[in-house]
Amino acid sequence: MSDKGKITPSILPGFMELLPGEQVAFNGMLDSIKESFELCGFLPLDTPVIEKAEILKAKGGEETERQLYAFKKGENELALRFDLTVPFARYVSQRMNDLTFPFKRYQIGKVFRGERPQKGRFREFYQCDIDIVDKDNLSLAYDAEILSTTYTTFERLNIGGFLIKINNRKLLTGFIESLGLNEKLSKILRNIDKKDKTGDESVKQELSNMGCSSAQVEKLIKFINTDGTPKEIIKSLAALNIGNENFQTGLEEMQEIVKYLGYMNIPVSCWKIDLSIARGLDYYTGTVFETILKDYPEFGTICGGGRYDNLTEYFTSQKLPGVGVSIGLTRLFDQLSERGLIKIDGSAILRVAVLPLGEYMELAYGLVANLRKNNVSAEVLLLGDGLKKKLSIVNKRGIKFAAIIGENEIKNKVITIKDMESGEQEEVNIENVVDYIKKA
Amino acid sequence: MSDKGKITPSILPGFMELLPGEQVAFNGMLDSIKESFELCGFLPLDTPVIEKAEILKAKGGEETERQLYAFKKGENELALRFDLTVPFARYVSQRMNDLTFPFKRYQIGKVFRGERPQKGRFREFYQCDIDIVDKDNLSLAYDAEILSTTYTTFERLNIGGFLIKINNRKLLTGFIESLGLNEKLSKILRNIDKKDKTGDESVKQELSNMGCSSAQVEKLIKFINTDGTPKEIIKSLAALNIGNENFQTGLEEMQEIVKYLGYMNIPVSCWKIDLSIARGLDYYTGTVFETILKDYPEFGTICGGGRYDNLTEYFTSQKLPGVGVSIGLTRLFDQLSERGLIKIDGSAILRVAVLPLGEYMELAYGLVANLRKNNVSAEVLLLGDGLKKKLSIVNKRGIKFAAIIGENEIKNKVITIKDMESGEQEEVNIENVVDYIKKA
Repeated sequence: MSDKGKITPSILPGFMELLPGEQVAFNGMLDSIKESFELCGFLPLDTPVIEKAEILKAKGGEETERQLYAFKKGENELALRFDLTVPFARYVSQRMNDLTFPFKRYQIGKVFRGERPQKGRFREFYQCDIDIVDKDNLSLAYDAEILSTTYTTFERLNIGGFLIKINNRKLLTGFIESLGLNEKLSKILRNIDKKDKTGDESVKQELSNMGCSSAQVEKLIKFINTDGTPKEIIKSLAALNIGNENFQTGLEEMQEIVKYLGYMNIPVSCWKIDLSIARGLDYYTGTVFETILKDYPEFGTICGGGRYDNLTEYFTSQKLPGVGVSIGLTRLFDQLSERGLIKIDGSAILRVAVLPLGEYMELAYGLVANLRKNNVSAEVLLLGDGLKKKLSIVNKRGIKFAAIIGENEIKNKVITIKDMESGEQEEVNIENVVDYIKKA
Repeated sequence: MSDKGKITPSILPGFMELLPGEQVAFNGMLDSIKESFELCGFLPLDTPVIEKAEILKAKGGEETERQLYAFKKGENELALRFDLTVPFARYVSQRMNDLTFPFKRYQIGKVFRGERPQKGRFREFYQCDIDIVDKDNLSLAYDAEILSTTYTTFERLNIGGFLIKINNRKLLTGFIESLGLNEKLSKILRNIDKKDKTGDESVKQELSNMGCSSAQVEKLIKFINTDGTPKEIIKSLAALNIGNENFQTGLEEMQEIVKYLGYMNIPVSCWKIDLSIARGLDYYTGTVFETILKDYPEFGTICGGGRYDNLTEYFTSQKLPGVGVSIGLTRLFDQLSERGLIKIDGSAILRVAVLPLGEYMELAYGLVANLRKNNVSAEVLLLGDGLKKKLSIVNKRGIKFAAIIGENEIKNKVITIKDMESGEQEEVNIENVVDYIKKA
C-alpha cells in the first residue's frame, strides 16, 4: 500500500495530543480539579477562545505581543487568548451589573502561546483558574479561601505531597524600599523570582551587578532565606522593626491570612511562608504564592497565584480587586507522565462487555440496552472468534465484566458473568443481571 | 466615574458568552452528553484547536476555505479546526498502529467558522461528536450503535420528545439513477436536502428548472414522501422492483439496521425511516440521519450523522470506513434558552452556606473545611448584616442549606440548619452536622 500523493497526517510541534488511555487519565485529573473548584463554591465560566486583539493587548508587554496568535478575519483584528485572566478581567468589567459580588468563578480551558517549542513548554495548554473579585474592597479571608481551595484541589488530585509557599509582595517591596533600593525594585523582584532555579550565589552576583552594596546584598539574601514556622517568621519580621508602610501592611496581611489558614484546618505540612516568592507577573499587589510537589521539586511551580488590585483598570474605572490561582495542567500531566506516574487504565470507561457466542444478537443488544438504561456502561463485543479469543480482548481492554451468552446459557435462561479481575464466574438469571452487576 | 480612555470591554459578534447561572445549565447539558457517550463505551479524545492549514484544507471546498480562520505564525500556515471530523480522520490515520479497532471515540470541543453572523449562527461553537471506525470493513451493527447512542443521549438530556429520521444515501442515489438522472445526482441531493425548509413545491420547481421531466419530478416527490412504519416502508421499497445495484444494497443495509434497532429496544416513537433525508455533507456513503425535537420542529436538525467510507483518503491508503454523529450544542442551547426552556439554577454548585453571626469565624471556617472534606460543597457567607439579610442572600442564590452559628448556638454547642426550600430548621449537634447534611 503506498501513501504517495497523500498529505502526511501530523500535528504542529508544541501541541499535546494523547492516546485514548492517556486521555482518560488526563480527563480524570481535569474532572477532579473541576469537582474541587465546585466543592469550594466557584461558579463555572467559559469565555471565547478568540477575543478582539485590542482586549488581549490592553496590558501590553513585549513577550505577550510576540507570543500572541493574532490575525485578521474580515475587518476584525483577532487573537487567541494567552491566559484566562485577561478575558476574566474583561468579562467582569463588561458584565459587572449582572454579577453578584464577591464573584467566585472557575474556568478550565485551553490557552495559546506561540513560544519557541521546547521540552515541557506547550503552545496550546490547559489552564485551570479560580478567582474571586469584589467591588471596591475584597476581604483577606478570600486570599485564604483561594489558598484553601488550592489545598483541597491538590489533596484530592492525589499526586503526592505538595507545599504551598506563601509570601506578600508588600513585605518584599517594603523591605527593598527600606534598604533605599526603590529605583531597582522591579529588577530586584525579577531576580529574586529566579532564586529557585539559579540559587543564592547567582542572585547575589546579579544584585551586585545591579549596583547593590554588599551590605544590601547580604541583608536581602538573609531576608529571603528567613526560615521557620509561620509564627516564627512573623515574629522575626516584626522584630526587624521596619517602619516602612508597605512592609507593615504586608506584615498585617500575612498575619491575617495565617490566622484564616489556621481556622481552615489546612495541615501545616502543606504550606509555609517563603519570603523569596515574588511571582513573575507584575500585576500582583499583595499575597503571592506558588505550589511545588515535595517529591518532585524539579517540576518547578505547578501552580501560582496571588492578589491583584488593578487588573481591570484597562476596561473600567470601577475598582475591582481580586485574588486567584492558575494550574497549568498540560505541563503537569506531561511531567507526571514522563516519570511514569500516570496510570493508564482503559477500564475507566467501559464496565461490561457482552459476548454473544453465536446468533444471540437480539439478547446481547437487549442486555446492553438494559444495562445502559440503568447507568452501567456496556457494549456488545463483536470481535474475536470463540470465547477464549473474546475473553482475551476483554482482558486486554481492562473491562471489569464479561457477560457470556452461549448455547448453554440460552438453554438455562442464564447469563454467565465473569469478573475479569478475580477470574471468578457465576451463572445469573437473565432478569437479575443488571442488579448483580450494580451490586458487584 | 468616567471610563474615558478605557478600552470598551466587549466580545466579537457571533460568539456565545453566558452568565454564571446559564453556564451552570450549559455545563449540565455538556456533562449529560459526555456521560451518555461514556455509558455507550466511547473513549475520549482531544485534538489541538490549531492544526496545520493543509490538513484542514485537504478536502477542499469553497465554503470551508472562506469560513476558515487561517493565519501564519513564524513559518507555519495554521488554521483553527472547523469541525471535529477532519481532525479525527487525521488522528486515526496518524495513530493507526496505536489504536484498537473498531475504535469508538467521542470528542466534545469548540470549533470555529468565520460565517457572517446571524441569529442562531455562531462563529465559535461546541460540537459533541461520536464516531466508530474500523480497518477495511465496519459492520452495520455500528451504524445502529451510533443511532442507539444518539437515542440514549437525547433520552437522558431530558429536553422533550425527539425523532431520529433515518435514510440511506444508496437508496436515494439508486432511485435517482434508476430514473436516469445520474448526471444531476449531487444537485438533486442538495435540493432534496432543503425540503424540510422549503417544502415540496419549491423542490418540485427546482427539479423542473434542472431539466427533470414532470414524470421524473412526480416520481421523486412521491418517493421522498413515502410514509409508514419501518416495515411498511421497507415493503413498499421492495415492491418498487428497482434492479439498480445501489438501491438494492441500500435496501439490504436499511433492513439490517432496522433489525438491530429492534434488538436494541429503541422505542418506535423515537425513530422513523424518512427517504427525504440526504444530509448536506458529501462524504456520506450509506446510512444518514437527522434528529429533530417533536415539540420544536422549527429548531431544525439538532444533530446529524451517517456512514462514510472515504474520510481518511487524503491521509492514508488504508481503508478506514466510519460512522458518526455530531450534536451542535451551542445552537441547541441558544434555541432552548430563547424559548425559556433552560432552567437557571445557581443551587447546582453550592449546597451549604455557613452564616457566622458575630466573631465565630474559626468555627465557621472549620465547619466548611469539614463539609468539603466530606464532599459537600460549602462556603462561609461573609456578606450581609444580620441573620435576615444573610438568609435572603442565601435564598436568592438558590443554596439548599444555611448553617447558622450565633450566640445561642455557641452556648448549646449546636448549629442551626435551615432547609431553604422547606423553610424548616433544626438544631444539630456540631459533631453531627456533616452527617445530617449528607443524609438530607
